[in-house]
Amino acid sequence: MLNIGILGCGRIGQVHGKTLKGMDTARAVAVSDFLPEAANALADDLNAKVMSSEEIICDSSIDAVIIGTPTTTHYDLIHEAAANGKAIFCEKPVDLSVERIRECMVAVEKAGVPFMTAFNRRFDPSFANLKRKISDQVIGDVEIVTILSRDPSPPPIGYIKTSGGIFRDMMIHDLDMARFLLGEEPIELSSAASCLVDPEIGKAGDFDTAVVTLKTASGKLCQISNSRRATYGYDQRIEVHGSMGMLRADNILRIQLSCQTPLDFNQPLRNHFSWKDMLKLTEQK
Amino acid sequence: MLNIGILGCGRIGQVHGKTLKGMDTARAVAVSDFLPEAANALADDLNAKVMSSEEIICDSSIDAVIIGTPTTTHYDLIHEAAANGKAIFCEKPVDLSVERIRECMVAVEKAGVPFMTAFNRRFDPSFANLKRKISDQVIGDVEIVTILSRDPSPPPIGYIKTSGGIFRDMMIHDLDMARFLLGEEPIELSSAASCLVDPEIGKAGDFDTAVVTLKTASGKLCQISNSRRATYGYDQRIEVHGSMGMLRADNILRIQLSCQTPLDFNQPLRNHFSWKDMLKLTEQK
Amino acid sequence: MLNIGILGCGRIGQVHGKTLKGMDTARAVAVSDFLPEAANALADDLNAKVMSSEEIICDSSIDAVIIGTPTTTHYDLIHEAAANGKAIFCEKPVDLSVERIRECMVAVEKAGVPFMTAFNRRFDPSFANLKRKISDQVIGDVEIVTILSRDPSPPPIGYIKTSGGIFRDMMIHDLDMARFLLGEEPIELSSAASCLVDPEIGKAGDFDTAVVTLKTASGKLCQISNSRRATYGYDQRIEVHGSMGMLRADNILRIQLSCQTPLDFNQPLRNHFSWKDMLKLTEQK
Amino acid sequence: MLNIGILGCGRIGQVHGKTLKGMDTARAVAVSDFLPEAANALADDLNAKVMSSEEIICDSSIDAVIIGTPTTTHYDLIHEAAANGKAIFCEKPVDLSVERIRECMVAVEKAGVPFMTAFNRRFDPSFANLKRKISDQVIGDVEIVTILSRDPSPPPIGYIKTSGGIFRDMMIHDLDMARFLLGEEPIELSSAASCLVDPEIGKAGDFDTAVVTLKTASGKLCQISNSRRATYGYDQRIEVHGSMGMLRADNILRIQLSCQTPLDFNQPLRNHFSWKDMLKLTEQK
Repeated sequence: MLNIGILGCGRIGQVHGKTLKGMDTARAVAVSDFLPEAANALADDLNAKVMSSEEIICDSSIDAVIIGTPTTTHYDLIHEAAANGKAIFCEKPVDLSVERIRECMVAVEKAGVPFMTAFNRRFDPSFANLKRKISDQVIGDVEIVTILSRDPSPPPIGYIKTSGGIFRDMMIHDLDMARFLLGEEPIELSSAASCLVDPEIGKAGDFDTAVVTLKTASGKLCQISNSRRATYGYDQRIEVHGSMGMLRADNILRIQLSCQTPLDFNQPLRNHFSWKDMLKLTEQK
Repeated sequence: MLNIGILGCGRIGQVHGKTLKGMDTARAVAVSDFLPEAANALADDLNAKVMSSEEIICDSSIDAVIIGTPTTTHYDLIHEAAANGKAIFCEKPVDLSVERIRECMVAVEKAGVPFMTAFNRRFDPSFANLKRKISDQVIGDVEIVTILSRDPSPPPIGYIKTSGGIFRDMMIHDLDMARFLLGEEPIELSSAASCLVDPEIGKAGDFDTAVVTLKTASGKLCQISNSRRATYGYDQRIEVHGSMGMLRADNILRIQLSCQTPLDFNQPLRNHFSWKDMLKLTEQK
Repeated sequence: MLNIGILGCGRIGQVHGKTLKGMDTARAVAVSDFLPEAANALADDLNAKVMSSEEIICDSSIDAVIIGTPTTTHYDLIHEAAANGKAIFCEKPVDLSVERIRECMVAVEKAGVPFMTAFNRRFDPSFANLKRKISDQVIGDVEIVTILSRDPSPPPIGYIKTSGGIFRDMMIHDLDMARFLLGEEPIELSSAASCLVDPEIGKAGDFDTAVVTLKTASGKLCQISNSRRATYGYDQRIEVHGSMGMLRADNILRIQLSCQTPLDFNQPLRNHFSWKDMLKLTEQK
Repeated sequence: MLNIGILGCGRIGQVHGKTLKGMDTARAVAVSDFLPEAANALADDLNAKVMSSEEIICDSSIDAVIIGTPTTTHYDLIHEAAANGKAIFCEKPVDLSVERIRECMVAVEKAGVPFMTAFNRRFDPSFANLKRKISDQVIGDVEIVTILSRDPSPPPIGYIKTSGGIFRDMMIHDLDMARFLLGEEPIELSSAASCLVDPEIGKAGDFDTAVVTLKTASGKLCQISNSRRATYGYDQRIEVHGSMGMLRADNILRIQLSCQTPLDFNQPLRNHFSWKDMLKLTEQK
């Protein structure tokens, strides 16, 4: 049983706390927040102790920390947690400065502690299997990656305004997935975007519908397509076309019910066969 | 928030307790068992009180009871709970005597309390939707029901010996589903069964592979197919053929990944079209 | 290029003639019929000669014969064609007497000529592949075969009256498929049947909806389901459940168009993952 | 029965001739070619007469012409055929000059004759149905069109060299489809392309893998993806994301066989349900 400390009891700290409640191999034992009432509420819910972030990081009975505090605090907390041998999960963005993120990486590597950030889609069972099949060379070399990613409905305008825009807030996951699947860094990029879902999003200076094309040095291509709205539900699909075949990860549907009626156009083709087929099949034996 | 009392803290009482833990609209507030240690263990886990079954039934702060005690006690507990206005969930079998079950029904109806027993498959989202579409006459009149129901692997021989056999232990759910979907009682029945999975099951006097055919008075047909083993996972599918179409509830898969390679035989048909098709399409405009 | 003679220019002779027209490796060079006008019409259409059946059978430039004449003539024509070294395709039924069919088999084997009868479904590409996968032991030992076979609409009542009934006229193909896939002869059989599609079929002494259960000596089971009507098109599906997996041959649809809208219930499950999944996946590496 | 004259007996004229052979509502009655032997060969095969193009166009017993002659001759033949009231099918490109194509359109419209060119994919049954559903507003307003189009294998290098390149030779069909489905002209375009399939294609100055992004004035987006190779067969799929739902046209597969074994990762999710689901379902009634 892993003992976890949660640093930051805001929305995302609560999300991670709830996840830990349902686990058998890890539990939240301590939480911290600069607002005492936030810390107390989550501690109650998780049957955990309220401590300061420093106390959690120094507590030798705690194995790992989840950093869900404001971005500006990540740098120091990562350094301290690494120095104290804690496994670290840090919310994205790790920092707003690439240079400082690199310094965090150095600290983590020097300490030899596990570190991960919130690119969770890599752990989706379908996508993780797709990646494994690519690594197993099931489809040869990757040539074209197609990522279709659509949210059920746009977030509130208030959120849009501070979100950093559709590319940094939403497509960031797909860009991570592209790098994950291409196995190379993109060197060319083009984009096109529109405001088709809600004019208020446009007024806020953002787009709600966006596509991006990436190309790597060796010529691999990737197309990403985002919409803030998919009226039929959360839509996350990936297809990878390779030199030896194609892999396709589709949505898992909540219900698997199909219906065929006379009004339906998807009617069975008459099973057809002929002497020609028969001869061929006979020859194959 | 519904307050629930769990009568019986054996395996099935624990299953229901665990389900209640994950709910926001109901909670287990009290448990009873003739073994104090069983009651204490579940009470601890659920943060509930230990009481006697009678105390639970008479406690006006409790809204509903889950009866998971031995079958012989169901009759009395149902009558008492109904008389005290409790909503009742009673495990199957309600009783071993059809006559006594009817008496329970009378008591429940007289009291006007909700009552249900453990034919849970009616609440599977795909099957429930399938039933609703039948009721909405989407496929006209039901003509043939096909139920494919296969467990991942056989239970221990010890369980098999006291299970009542594949028809009463496993197919009972499919027979319930048949009645649910046919909308009529069967009047003819035939069966065939084999022992193909494990010879020990045969030695225990049971079958592990079984099929049944049902026919109703109006001529509707139903085929049920059971196996104690499906090496690829729990397999529960239903198809209903009607006078105006067909409905099919398939499994929801854990991962939705498809792969096409040169070795694959499921290759695309060349999209074919001809002047003939073109003329037809032109005429349709 | 194989040269074929067609014996019998009725409906089925014309069907085979039309098939030959589309082939590059065989052609109809001669036809026979006791009605001169039938023979002339088909000969014209196929650019073939009119000859007598005897002339065709004796013509050394002809490689094979298609026997589409009345059932009573099959026995003699098979014997003559075999004696003259012709490859033989003979329509079903080969004869009404099992004894006489056995005599035909002896004649054919003695002559060493290829012979086949019209169980064409074995040559359906999906079913043929399914059979091959069974033979390759992809799913271990066959345990349950499920055959769903439904025609788009019932034939005319006139045809029903002389058809021999749904079991001999329609289910005969499924019974052949059952033997093909089970790899053993059935030793037990039960059936149920109804008249649900058209009361006129019932008045003619036949059924339009029928199911059969087969069991072989080693305990393999098979369920067959037939309807004279499938409003959504010709419906031919087979599923084979084995000790190591399951094979399923579905219909090939004329159009592959799917639609998801807010009204649709088949919505994507939210891709869910958790630290638990992440840890598992990490461990697998 | 429509009487058709085929102008030009090269590869494409032969293709159209073969199609006509299989039709019941049209037939080739005359063919022309500047090479007598080409005309004679096709005439023989189609049981048609050899005539000059001018004779065909002036023959009042001929309803329509198929123009499969060299591009430079199209302009004159279209004008003459239109003036003589013939329905016209003209191969692409109609002409190399946009201005001259516009003049052909004027001539055709003035004559009031049917005219079509070889964007045949609009008549693919799945794509035609998809278009119809868009027109029927099944998915609201079109927002993103995704076109995946991959050939089984690249053409010979000799063909590549004179083909005009992947965009004009192959993607032209997808660009036509984009215009067909967007219902608006694109005003922005970006592309990326690579040579991943065969370095010889690169040496010939062409690409074998290419993607394009289109944007219309109202902000609709389209992503097109092309490869000269799809080892698993001819791959033609389209998806349209709209304000009210999504339409997806998949390949029709040659065989529909699925297999589930213990090695398979696509295992069924355990059908799960709980009191929570049950309560919800009860409330819905």
